[in-house]
Amino acid sequence: MSRRTISHETGAIYEFTPELEPIATVESGAQLTVETRDSLDGAIQSESDVIESVPAEVNAATGPIEVEGAEPGDVLRVDIDDIRLTEDRGRVISIEGFGLLDGHEGIEAPRSRITPVESDGVGVGDGNGERAGTSDATLSIEGIDADVPVEPLIGTIGIATESESHTTLVPHNHGGNLDTTDLCAGNSVYFPVFQAGAMLAMGDCKAAMADGEMCGTGAEIGTAIDVTVAVLSDPEIELERPLIETPEAWKPVASADTLEAACERATRDAIELLAAEHEVDTTDAYLFASLVGDLEISQVVDPLVTVRNAVPKAYLSAPF
Amino acid sequence: MSRRTISHETGAIYEFTPELEPIATVESGAQLTVETRDSLDGAIQSESDVIESVPAEVNAATGPIEVEGAEPGDVLRVDIDDIRLTEDRGRVISIEGFGLLDGHEGIEAPRSRITPVESDGVGVGDGNGERAGTSDATLSIEGIDADVPVEPLIGTIGIATESESHTTLVPHNHGGNLDTTDLCAGNSVYFPVFQAGAMLAMGDCKAAMADGEMCGTGAEIGTAIDVTVAVLSDPEIELERPLIETPEAWKPVASADTLEAACERATRDAIELLAAEHEVDTTDAYLFASLVGDLEISQVVDPLVTVRNAVPKAYLSAPF
Repeated sequence: MSRRTISHETGAIYEFTPELEPIATVESGAQLTVETRDSLDGAIQSESDVIESVPAEVNAATGPIEVEGAEPGDVLRVDIDDIRLTEDRGRVISIEGFGLLDGHEGIEAPRSRITPVESDGVGVGDGNGERAGTSDATLSIEGIDADVPVEPLIGTIGIATESESHTTLVPHNHGGNLDTTDLCAGNSVYFPVFQAGAMLAMGDCKAAMADGEMCGTGAEIGTAIDVTVAVLSDPEIELERPLIETPEAWKPVASADTLEAACERATRDAIELLAAEHEVDTTDAYLFASLVGDLEISQVVDPLVTVRNAVPKAYLSAPF
Repeated sequence: MSRRTISHETGAIYEFTPELEPIATVESGAQLTVETRDSLDGAIQSESDVIESVPAEVNAATGPIEVEGAEPGDVLRVDIDDIRLTEDRGRVISIEGFGLLDGHEGIEAPRSRITPVESDGVGVGDGNGERAGTSDATLSIEGIDADVPVEPLIGTIGIATESESHTTLVPHNHGGNLDTTDLCAGNSVYFPVFQAGAMLAMGDCKAAMADGEMCGTGAEIGTAIDVTVAVLSDPEIELERPLIETPEAWKPVASADTLEAACERATRDAIELLAAEHEVDTTDAYLFASLVGDLEISQVVDPLVTVRNAVPKAYLSAPF
């Protein structure tokens, strides 16, 4: 099966709602290449380009992509096969009114820094349709003498919501602006399907980002994302929120107004999976999770914040 | 130099204050074995032993240990050389009024579960003074069929405070109940010295604990901790809070009322280290940290919560 390419030039959304019109329709099992532009729609091309306040439209998500056969109550599995950079530079910025240290002494906003990407000394993403591999690529930030490994991730990925509307700046149960380092090549993310066709969209990729995304961005960059989508009908568990699978762990992902509330939700999801697997009550699963299920910070800025609870596969087989 | 043993039977504290009377005095560079009892002072020996509410005295910290020559403004370095279990079982518990999911539906408190420890099928810590190695040891939780690797850590470690008093239940700038998985063998922790002699104390060890310590405990257990202590005079940086060194990273550790506030403090510390190293202003260090400095959760329950910011050594040489 050849990959079908879906470009952000065909369509992109800035809001996840219950009713989304697809720009493409694919079968369950389809392999896709989803092209995305940088989260700031190309507004930052040099350090003199700055963003004074959070734009009304940010984090363009290429799509929506209708997946045939997906019905409410199903689960949509998205395998992230590869993420290739399609620009030779990203950008990391501060914006007034945004970010963990907004308003702190010595923290200036707006500021923009360009992050050139190199692979064996060759610029990545030359614009001719050929894209260098990123496995050995590094980026730097102008003014700092350090090479940072390129580890691309998807910032915003989600589906049509159950009833609410969320801009692509906000993460919630439909996914959205999760800004989670585990949304990288080799991992899968599972969503509860709320609407017929699921209506998948993604964008807002980073060439690198730390857990926390403290200033409010990673190294924002255009990409081509290879994904495989699959509908899981009649799943054994009722999924309420996104769930990430890595080679080592299952990670329920929860967003909320505070990190504490997000921790509660992610832990609750984790212990329900552990309780079902080990046939114990939720209290015993809670005690067990306190020994094995690491709480991890995804992001602290979006303005809902996101946390995941990493349960090693040694203690949890496939929940579906 | 032979190791000097300091036992919890000689002295232990339940509160870190500015004025602490030492039970031992050692030189800078001393190698010590610090014996600790479990955080609940042996109250839980079977599942029928439960704790109805958080005890007034918990997390006995063996010490205080006066380190000769330590003066306010210095830094105390504590290398954690080894942590050996001295019991063949730990315990993980829920307590009413404590823990991330306290009061949630289906979460019962009090409950106690015993966590037997095995090493190649042999019980660890036979009470005869011989202690099995823990590198290949596992523990289990009664009722759940899973072996969990034994990865011992120090829950409570700290020094005399600047001016406040904190029980050993609470973490703050003096250390205290940090409940941080990185407080394990092979790592070092640095404290700002607030009082002459530093007055180091430690206890509250766990045979295993997840990042978060969601139920409020790990597998609480008695241990013998090998440490090396050293006074760093006239340090190049002014340390305000604990700093952990692992083989890969420097990790400022911050505690606060909320995870958000703790994230702000740990990030602030990290970017000040990065700014000094790379000779850039704090804003550029902030943007750089957002690409490389992972926020990590230590614990969410104590009742101040603790977070660390992990800056890879690739970007930060020794700050002292």
